[in-house]
Amino acid sequence: MEYIHGGDIYRNPVEYDFSVNINPLGMPKKSLEAAQRAMLLCGSYPDWQGEALRRAIAEKEGVLTEQVILGNGAAELIYALCFGLAGGKGLILAPSFGEYEAALFAAGGEPVFWKLREEKDFQLKEDILTVITGNMRVLFLCNPNNPTGSLTERELLCRIAQKCEETDTYLCLDECFLPFCGREAEVSMKGMLARFPHLVILRAFTKIYGMPGLRLGYAMSVNEELLQAMRGCMQPWNTSIPAQMAGIEALKDQEYLERTRRLIGREREYLKRELAAGLAERIYPSDANFLFFQAQRDLKELLLKEKVLIRSCANYRNLEEGYFRIGIRTHEENRELIRRWHRAIKG
Amino acid sequence: MEYIHGGDIYRNPVEYDFSVNINPLGMPKKSLEAAQRAMLLCGSYPDWQGEALRRAIAEKEGVLTEQVILGNGAAELIYALCFGLAGGKGLILAPSFGEYEAALFAAGGEPVFWKLREEKDFQLKEDILTVITGNMRVLFLCNPNNPTGSLTERELLCRIAQKCEETDTYLCLDECFLPFCGREAEVSMKGMLARFPHLVILRAFTKIYGMPGLRLGYAMSVNEELLQAMRGCMQPWNTSIPAQMAGIEALKDQEYLERTRRLIGREREYLKRELAAGLAERIYPSDANFLFFQAQRDLKELLLKEKVLIRSCANYRNLEEGYFRIGIRTHEENRELIRRWHRAIKG
Repeated sequence: MEYIHGGDIYRNPVEYDFSVNINPLGMPKKSLEAAQRAMLLCGSYPDWQGEALRRAIAEKEGVLTEQVILGNGAAELIYALCFGLAGGKGLILAPSFGEYEAALFAAGGEPVFWKLREEKDFQLKEDILTVITGNMRVLFLCNPNNPTGSLTERELLCRIAQKCEETDTYLCLDECFLPFCGREAEVSMKGMLARFPHLVILRAFTKIYGMPGLRLGYAMSVNEELLQAMRGCMQPWNTSIPAQMAGIEALKDQEYLERTRRLIGREREYLKRELAAGLAERIYPSDANFLFFQAQRDLKELLLKEKVLIRSCANYRNLEEGYFRIGIRTHEENRELIRRWHRAIKG
Repeated sequence: MEYIHGGDIYRNPVEYDFSVNINPLGMPKKSLEAAQRAMLLCGSYPDWQGEALRRAIAEKEGVLTEQVILGNGAAELIYALCFGLAGGKGLILAPSFGEYEAALFAAGGEPVFWKLREEKDFQLKEDILTVITGNMRVLFLCNPNNPTGSLTERELLCRIAQKCEETDTYLCLDECFLPFCGREAEVSMKGMLARFPHLVILRAFTKIYGMPGLRLGYAMSVNEELLQAMRGCMQPWNTSIPAQMAGIEALKDQEYLERTRRLIGREREYLKRELAAGLAERIYPSDANFLFFQAQRDLKELLLKEKVLIRSCANYRNLEEGYFRIGIRTHEENRELIRRWHRAIKG
């Protein structure tokens, strides 16, 4: 299996990277300072229980400390979950984040795909309930979904979670992009954990706090047995000291979150308007910090000539050439994207 | 399974930590600076291929870049190996590093233990050859062994590796402590990789470059299939940007390595002399940066009162109360250990 992901700036030297879904504000200043200070402590092992950070997460999310486990990025937790469940069938949306499939495959599991329909804007609909019948170990959902940006409302999520409970199916709900959405409070399932012991929610510092290079994520569940199984599939010292300390500082910065949401909301509208004016062929509704659209098949190559990297979604299941995703960035960067895009297609 | 490791300074507030096996010189200065600079780049994803670092490792070790894979510490690679092999029996020395067993267990494997004999100073002997018969998937060796510090010569290692080849048994050789040993060049098996496709060698930046809080390790093998299986069991972005950049700088610092070996050699002799003068009951021969010994059963508790943390080895397989391990540190720290130890047992 070959990895194709966004963000490969190491083999695509570019001036503007729109291929990733990262907070364009950059890491909160206090997180950066804490991580740099933390470097001086790296002669010691990290706290393998991550106690201080887990306590801070628990407080912010309104759960108990023992309901939180840490990962070296949320991606590690996807693998830990699949290894912890030791295989079995897993239902995965198509398209969705590729690591669910890769992790399930690595753990000897069998991925089964649920095709989202283009004519429904790739929106998850209640017909998914019909396939949650108990012959699967786990269902992966991403909300808002990556790469489509489409949001599933809590009402449907609760019905899915209920069906999962009834059929002994684990539900891995990836909320990594939800903090970018203005409606996080009414959509997140974190308040529902106690009702659904099969539910595990993934969150990342990577995306919302703009620190993908530092690696930090977490999972929440009331299912002690499941968390223990996941923990057992990871080395004890999986999160670094700089990541733990940056995370603790990030959680204190409520103003940063609000500033992020305002920026993303405003810039999403700006980009949608500009893309609709002759750049993209079809733009799908997004509640995330990225836009998903159809455009001319060679758009990625055209923009690379302008030193702009975007994400071709041709390698996602159930998609093909001509589908693309761009991260929403600062107004200056977004304007530059639009300028170069116009130049590229005129060129 | 409960984790008991050295280095838990987060729940044992101490002034001197002798429970870990880390280079007492601290991270090389240029690594620290590189890691701090790297923090400014953490708004991007790490290079998931870790190309620059893998190339630097390959050059230093005299192997090809494609024969190197990176881990978030060597510990992650132990798990990746076990998951990559997908279970089966694994032979593990007793005593040895506890993560081999934990990882094998997590991957559904079955640990089998090879008891090292106290009367032979827990030295690995050629009688281990008799149990490499092809009914095991993997054999874990640690050289020098942790916690005993005992070194196995290359001649015996080659005979073991040869037997592993003949019986289709993977050989995971953990050389994390070998760079501390003055005889690394004549003992390391890295020059033998081409001869033994079942051999995979683990190395850590953690120990020799004093950066356990940053997490970085690597594995080397000529077995492409095995490396790919291991890589497939880890997320793509498993090593952080600060770790990758600190690693690249560390590899350039040959003087640091020589200074480390001189210090460890000298201080090992100093500590052995002091321990022999009425502190320890029995001191085992060590070629590592730590000493393994027997002493009064309550030594750890006595030293904790003096704010010194040492590693009780009572929870290792084939050991019991009264076995201890101390890391070798700077002369000033070692002298302070001896001073407080005398005070503790008089008290």
